[in-house]
Amino acid sequence: MLSDPLHGLTTALTDLGGQRVWSLLVTVFGDLTPEEGAGIDGPVLSGIMGRMNVRAEATRVALHRLRNDGWITSTKSGRTSRHSLTDHGRRETIQASRRIYARPDAAPGGWTVLLTEEANGDQRSQLETAGFTHLAPRIYIGPAGRPVPGNALVLSGAEVPDWLRQQLTPEGLCADYRALHRILSEVDSTLPKGTDLPPLDCAVLRCLIVHNWRRLVLKHPELPRALYTDDWREQECRALVSTLLHRFPRPNLADLAR
Amino acid sequence: MLSDPLHGLTTALTDLGGQRVWSLLVTVFGDLTPEEGAGIDGPVLSGIMGRMNVRAEATRVALHRLRNDGWITSTKSGRTSRHSLTDHGRRETIQASRRIYARPDAAPGGWTVLLTEEANGDQRSQLETAGFTHLAPRIYIGPAGRPVPGNALVLSGAEVPDWLRQQLTPEGLCADYRALHRILSEVDSTLPKGTDLPPLDCAVLRCLIVHNWRRLVLKHPELPRALYTDDWREQECRALVSTLLHRFPRPNLADLAR
Repeated sequence: MLSDPLHGLTTALTDLGGQRVWSLLVTVFGDLTPEEGAGIDGPVLSGIMGRMNVRAEATRVALHRLRNDGWITSTKSGRTSRHSLTDHGRRETIQASRRIYARPDAAPGGWTVLLTEEANGDQRSQLETAGFTHLAPRIYIGPAGRPVPGNALVLSGAEVPDWLRQQLTPEGLCADYRALHRILSEVDSTLPKGTDLPPLDCAVLRCLIVHNWRRLVLKHPELPRALYTDDWREQECRALVSTLLHRFPRPNLADLAR
Repeated sequence: MLSDPLHGLTTALTDLGGQRVWSLLVTVFGDLTPEEGAGIDGPVLSGIMGRMNVRAEATRVALHRLRNDGWITSTKSGRTSRHSLTDHGRRETIQASRRIYARPDAAPGGWTVLLTEEANGDQRSQLETAGFTHLAPRIYIGPAGRPVPGNALVLSGAEVPDWLRQQLTPEGLCADYRALHRILSEVDSTLPKGTDLPPLDCAVLRCLIVHNWRRLVLKHPELPRALYTDDWREQECRALVSTLLHRFPRPNLADLAR
């Protein structure tokens, strides 16, 4: 009875755009097989990808690419292939998971501005890796309380002027978050607390939610809410992602094969 | 009995350099005749300037220049000329007096960094007038608690890195303050509390102290101690200037004529 609304929601999530097959596979393996030694059998993977409107041929091509990139490894047992993350793929997955699955209350609250002694490309990369955003020559902004490399002047403030929030809010991403927020809200109301989904539906829904969320959240530095314009929906999306992944937990892979 | 050490001290103060006669006259009028309607008779002025090793001819040339600049006006009463500040000269004098005669405890304690929306020459002049120093494109530093023009991001901090203190401390001025501090300390110990100077000596000593002090203090923005290197003697000089001007108060101009 749920297949119709679910179909509409998965189509909406699939239609958000940017769903390259290899990238979708990275999400599927990252969400369903984070543990070492876990893998997905070929028929199960085809089932999941098919529900996301990906043809078997496209999945095969993308798997080939991910094997060449050292991300996925495939082993054959009889007539069935089993695919799993390589050590490299798992390391990268775990690294990204910290931000993708972070709890809403773990978001940075305060912010810090740095003035460095000079403009320096190496230092810029170092600061960006540490979570800071380049604002102007020698000036960076980032979450408060992080260790600051080097001997920069560390500054804090209270009021954030509008021009700075506009400068820090990427227009395209802001629109993408608003679109995702609309669909996640719809998922939340259409499949409320207590909804019981078959394991395959559950896997597909999770993967589509995580995929669309990670495409946005990994594309910008982690800054506190106060630094974005009022229409920035990152925090609202994170709260819904967290709620929905909790409502629809990761199914047992064994259950997916049935 | 005091004329010898006093002579040595006035010579030391005169030798600090940069004693252009017109500038020295601006100090003399500023310190001795700040009130509207006050003036200095020609012979008294000659007496004061003579004690500062300025020849009468040089004083006449400088007075001529200051009259042309609209700073000084001279009136004749019988055979005696009387010189006084014009309204313009008095306004400028009062403006500068705020910093020259500021009490040591009025020095700014905290500091603020501003990030402006864009680099803009007009805004830079406006901020510099408001007491801020340009640190880097779009970045200014100044005393905390001042009204900030425009919609800049207002920042504060605790630790000041060495490179910033070095950047903010002008080397030449730092050496000048050290030299002035040595002489003011000598004046303080040679002419201790309770010393009674004849009015003309008192006037000359005051003018030389104020003159050498204002040459330095008006040459840099007013920043808190924490932003300068450890060998910056502005605050120590200000304390001695304040003590000495209190110890040797402004004489009555009538007493100087005797």
